[in-house]
Amino acid sequence: MSHNSFGHLLRVTTWGESHGPALGCVVDGMPPRLPITAEEIQEFLDKRRPGQNRFTTQRKEPDSVKILSGTFKDESGVEMTTGTPISLMIENVDQRSKDYGDIKETFRPGHADYTYEAKYGIRDYRGGGRQSARETAARVAAGALARKVIPGIMVRGALVQMGPHKIDRSNWDWNEIDKNPFWCPDPVAAATWETYLDGVRKSGSSCGAVIELVASGVPAGLGAPIYGKLDAELAAALMSINAVKGVEIGDGFDTAALSGEENADEMSMKGNNVAFNANHAGGILGGISSGQDVVARFAVKPTSSILTPRKSVTRSGVETDVITKGRHDPCVGIRAVPVGEAMMACVLADHVLRHRGQTGNL
Amino acid sequence: MSHNSFGHLLRVTTWGESHGPALGCVVDGMPPRLPITAEEIQEFLDKRRPGQNRFTTQRKEPDSVKILSGTFKDESGVEMTTGTPISLMIENVDQRSKDYGDIKETFRPGHADYTYEAKYGIRDYRGGGRQSARETAARVAAGALARKVIPGIMVRGALVQMGPHKIDRSNWDWNEIDKNPFWCPDPVAAATWETYLDGVRKSGSSCGAVIELVASGVPAGLGAPIYGKLDAELAAALMSINAVKGVEIGDGFDTAALSGEENADEMSMKGNNVAFNANHAGGILGGISSGQDVVARFAVKPTSSILTPRKSVTRSGVETDVITKGRHDPCVGIRAVPVGEAMMACVLADHVLRHRGQTGNL
Amino acid sequence: MSHNSFGHLLRVTTWGESHGPALGCVVDGMPPRLPITAEEIQEFLDKRRPGQNRFTTQRKEPDSVKILSGTFKDESGVEMTTGTPISLMIENVDQRSKDYGDIKETFRPGHADYTYEAKYGIRDYRGGGRQSARETAARVAAGALARKVIPGIMVRGALVQMGPHKIDRSNWDWNEIDKNPFWCPDPVAAATWETYLDGVRKSGSSCGAVIELVASGVPAGLGAPIYGKLDAELAAALMSINAVKGVEIGDGFDTAALSGEENADEMSMKGNNVAFNANHAGGILGGISSGQDVVARFAVKPTSSILTPRKSVTRSGVETDVITKGRHDPCVGIRAVPVGEAMMACVLADHVLRHRGQTGNL
Amino acid sequence: MSHNSFGHLLRVTTWGESHGPALGCVVDGMPPRLPITAEEIQEFLDKRRPGQNRFTTQRKEPDSVKILSGTFKDESGVEMTTGTPISLMIENVDQRSKDYGDIKETFRPGHADYTYEAKYGIRDYRGGGRQSARETAARVAAGALARKVIPGIMVRGALVQMGPHKIDRSNWDWNEIDKNPFWCPDPVAAATWETYLDGVRKSGSSCGAVIELVASGVPAGLGAPIYGKLDAELAAALMSINAVKGVEIGDGFDTAALSGEENADEMSMKGNNVAFNANHAGGILGGISSGQDVVARFAVKPTSSILTPRKSVTRSGVETDVITKGRHDPCVGIRAVPVGEAMMACVLADHVLRHRGQTGNL
Repeated sequence: MSHNSFGHLLRVTTWGESHGPALGCVVDGMPPRLPITAEEIQEFLDKRRPGQNRFTTQRKEPDSVKILSGTFKDESGVEMTTGTPISLMIENVDQRSKDYGDIKETFRPGHADYTYEAKYGIRDYRGGGRQSARETAARVAAGALARKVIPGIMVRGALVQMGPHKIDRSNWDWNEIDKNPFWCPDPVAAATWETYLDGVRKSGSSCGAVIELVASGVPAGLGAPIYGKLDAELAAALMSINAVKGVEIGDGFDTAALSGEENADEMSMKGNNVAFNANHAGGILGGISSGQDVVARFAVKPTSSILTPRKSVTRSGVETDVITKGRHDPCVGIRAVPVGEAMMACVLADHVLRHRGQTGNL
Repeated sequence: MSHNSFGHLLRVTTWGESHGPALGCVVDGMPPRLPITAEEIQEFLDKRRPGQNRFTTQRKEPDSVKILSGTFKDESGVEMTTGTPISLMIENVDQRSKDYGDIKETFRPGHADYTYEAKYGIRDYRGGGRQSARETAARVAAGALARKVIPGIMVRGALVQMGPHKIDRSNWDWNEIDKNPFWCPDPVAAATWETYLDGVRKSGSSCGAVIELVASGVPAGLGAPIYGKLDAELAAALMSINAVKGVEIGDGFDTAALSGEENADEMSMKGNNVAFNANHAGGILGGISSGQDVVARFAVKPTSSILTPRKSVTRSGVETDVITKGRHDPCVGIRAVPVGEAMMACVLADHVLRHRGQTGNL
Repeated sequence: MSHNSFGHLLRVTTWGESHGPALGCVVDGMPPRLPITAEEIQEFLDKRRPGQNRFTTQRKEPDSVKILSGTFKDESGVEMTTGTPISLMIENVDQRSKDYGDIKETFRPGHADYTYEAKYGIRDYRGGGRQSARETAARVAAGALARKVIPGIMVRGALVQMGPHKIDRSNWDWNEIDKNPFWCPDPVAAATWETYLDGVRKSGSSCGAVIELVASGVPAGLGAPIYGKLDAELAAALMSINAVKGVEIGDGFDTAALSGEENADEMSMKGNNVAFNANHAGGILGGISSGQDVVARFAVKPTSSILTPRKSVTRSGVETDVITKGRHDPCVGIRAVPVGEAMMACVLADHVLRHRGQTGNL
Repeated sequence: MSHNSFGHLLRVTTWGESHGPALGCVVDGMPPRLPITAEEIQEFLDKRRPGQNRFTTQRKEPDSVKILSGTFKDESGVEMTTGTPISLMIENVDQRSKDYGDIKETFRPGHADYTYEAKYGIRDYRGGGRQSARETAARVAAGALARKVIPGIMVRGALVQMGPHKIDRSNWDWNEIDKNPFWCPDPVAAATWETYLDGVRKSGSSCGAVIELVASGVPAGLGAPIYGKLDAELAAALMSINAVKGVEIGDGFDTAALSGEENADEMSMKGNNVAFNANHAGGILGGISSGQDVVARFAVKPTSSILTPRKSVTRSGVETDVITKGRHDPCVGIRAVPVGEAMMACVLADHVLRHRGQTGNL
């Protein structure tokens, strides 16, 4: 076990605090001879990077990644994995620690300040320390490596709900994702959200979101029942992201209201291949991928860093009011999209290796 | 790693198929000198046992548990744990394998028949083999042991939605749980459900459900961020239960629509102790328990074993229609209540030991 | 982690006490569609079984193994693995617990009585409980499964030293192994040992032994540096066997006295293949198999169950003398041969799956 | 699992190559509020550091360690652990890669060049890449943290054999350890070794060594039978060190030649405490510490980097002769002393946490 690691054959360990000198990850178990460069990892980090528009925290972090180990330029001149652990480091640059002096003595409601203190008896309060969403940069970097392991699988994410506002799924267009600052696949919703989120931001409030992840090209057979089920490990991976409060696969909570007839995705033949006539199951049956798209959704709560005073207590047990100044995202769910993608890529890549190990297939 | 194990310091490994000679579990890492008897474990198994009323499968299984190792009667004459692995076995008795001959060659839609075949190239089709919900008996047995590790924590579950019908939460009364066959805390809903489920059962259909779990008496500090977060491990544990498609903590998916002001559970002092004025977070902040009730919900899809013919294909790739005869639960969610409780107890017990190991507290 | 488990992709968990109702193991991660029967496992258990001649304990245990899960007869009528956990159980039959009443209150010197009591505050003193060498029956059963995973690798063991008497390695003949009760490859030594061990046995004493294991047909590339090195995991696996006090690979401790020139196994070409002109390294370089025979040795101390009184103390802290009556092996090292083979087979099989998982080879 | 990690509750992951930009480790699971500074870690690194005298490689590496995460100065101004992962980094400075151009195409006999190539199909040949003993700097850094977890336990190591020359154990004096460049506890042997090793060095040869480790102050009860036995995990930890070919506990291989009477360490009472009259067992019985000194020894083979030409083959399968120029240790065993100490400290610290987790003691 390891508290700050996940995965089995492909194992990711992350480290680092919001306001320490750096953060990073060690990715162990990478198959050898996969071409990889820092630039390719950077591309994914840039998607998560703060300060890119007015809808994310104004902290200016280049999030520039360095590869410290595990790759080598062989005779061909191509940098590739060697099969040894890949250590990635991202240095922290814009650490305005003084912003956080106020919360040194006070627990922000809805934050993990109190629970870290209760658990450890000490906490790095600067920017939330280890509980900061900055940690997710390391996940995104790891996800970029994981994608190299599963070149035939495409993992994509989209924001499908911002605050109370859901997209119209009939408008879904993956090409829209990059055209708005929200990774929203519905251009109509995206326009509405812009106005909505401006209001939230200006009032110093915050809102939640729902993200949907879709993995296409997943072969049937991934997942290791009973306790290494693909959906169980996806659930843990997504629930471990900061501020996530719910995870569902396929139709998720809606399946409770379906009848057995509606829920059972009927099967037919498409040439020599098995085909499904629906995908209520989200591509996973009995914890094993069915060959359909793997579909997962997760809910992100509104960040508790808001300008409205909230009742709280100090470390010494005095009641007080708290305002969180600092620099924060009005909707942290937006930057959770590339993070969710990265987590899904890591879980899938690990399961590809595990499946190959046990069965010899793939 | 181990596909069929979960937990770290308290580690549960389960084994067994629906129609094999037996099923069981090995629970490793139990603290020593905890009094335990087979009868105490049996009590929890009896809650999950099939065939107790018309709303569960009519398979008659006594689910009688034997302790094969790990306990000893010391000088006091009390049977107690020794700290070595506890092996529990439940023999299968009522295995009408002939009921399942039909599905030998055909994949039931919505079941894991196809995915097991795709993964392993072989499957024990009798009663679903390893994918059968019978496996959950082993979880319940393990949960009974886990409860011994956390005597100060009470873990309870309730059915809060059957098919499309939700309870009225203002009627919630834990004392009602044992008074109806559904573990329903709302007596009004329970009465309605009886009629509803009779209809489902008679029509040979099935329905889904939502279960809510509440752990009271959980001390602050449990959970091991970042990837061993209490909520992440609960999510995996619950998602690994058969037919589960969604998991949420506290307000779960509803938090997406909350404002930051609403979502942040304000804090105050109650004497010398920190108190919370709300529990939208479900007792977990930053992956660590806050000292409030830990609240989780999970959605169970309707079983795909129904009498209405569904389109499917055979192992040899011929399209066909399938009816699942056998003996099945019209609402498997009901028997998932003690299973969910058991999983939550196991996760909490493991985290108590891990927290004690790292910090020396508890 | 799990205290009573080892291996990663192929994971073995054992349970059971010397005088409980049964003992057994769960082997998880077996590749699917490997033919296996209880009879094949029994064959290996019979090699380890006590009471077969005057040189092993006279406890009469049939050690009859039952397969409780994880196999299935497919359409071909052949029983084979399904990829789900295989649960094996061996019932205890000849438990003369009364023999052990004396040691209930007294710690036998050299035994784990005292340390179990110190760790757990309770111990099953009957036959040594969990610390009994009976536990190794479960290892042998698991090893029989592991051999199925690596059909191209032959794992063999031999006793190369009994008490102070070493074999003459120039007499080594694998065909002699089954012709004497000691698994001794040197017929001359075997004859000497018979007389020697009769003396040890009659005097109520005991002696130690050294076992050598050789795996042939191991492909180059197995082992996962840095901390999953093949030799590191072999060392743990062998050191975990009861009474083992030392492990070495290849020339082992003798390499300390070699020069760099002597120690470096020179290489040449044999046709298109790399060949080694010596094997001081025991087939492992940098923790990875080289394609040569993997050679390991382990030392077994003399059992502390002897008829000569030894000074000891009671649980209540009174000094006393102890004689261990019961039924014991004068040289436990003999029965450690099939146990060592089983452990080596398990480690190699696990590494074959892990190597295949990471690299796609094999 | 994770190939490059070890430990359970205290888990160490190392990364880095000999000639990459840096190497390091992540230590997860540290108890919170333990005071620690980079200087304290540096002290141990300085003991292992190369280039300190003519008997170690002349590579000049400051081995300067940086703490990148997991510590925080609390209100008291003392830097201490926070319970989150501690990331340590050591930058490589003196990488004369050109020295290693020769071995790009040729496998050095006795080295892991060939096996890395066989496993991964690629290898960072510069200085041995990941197989370099430079990796052990990360172990030493981790060991410094582990010692903080077990302040009551003193872990010390000594060279007890260099080449064929053993110390005279009756001369053993721990105070001599720091007075010679060999960590030799016998001043007479140390003088002899100096002459001996000068000869080895000047002839461009190399020699092996045996290291003995002693942990004092170890409480009874550490170790987790059956497969997490203290001796089993020590064996893995020590065997994983570069060039190690054998590990033994207590009297080790010599116990094979002892009688049961000699081997059983008799017990008596010392006041209210249990005392042992001998320690053949090396402080471990049944895999659990007995409260005596834990004693382990390991053998280090002579490095294969020598000036005498050895027969080898190239990557393209051509026979050739190899001389290893570069900068090397004539006796790598010397610098293995602090490495062995670090590994023992890590294993003991992990077991202290695991024991506390399971039993609540310590």
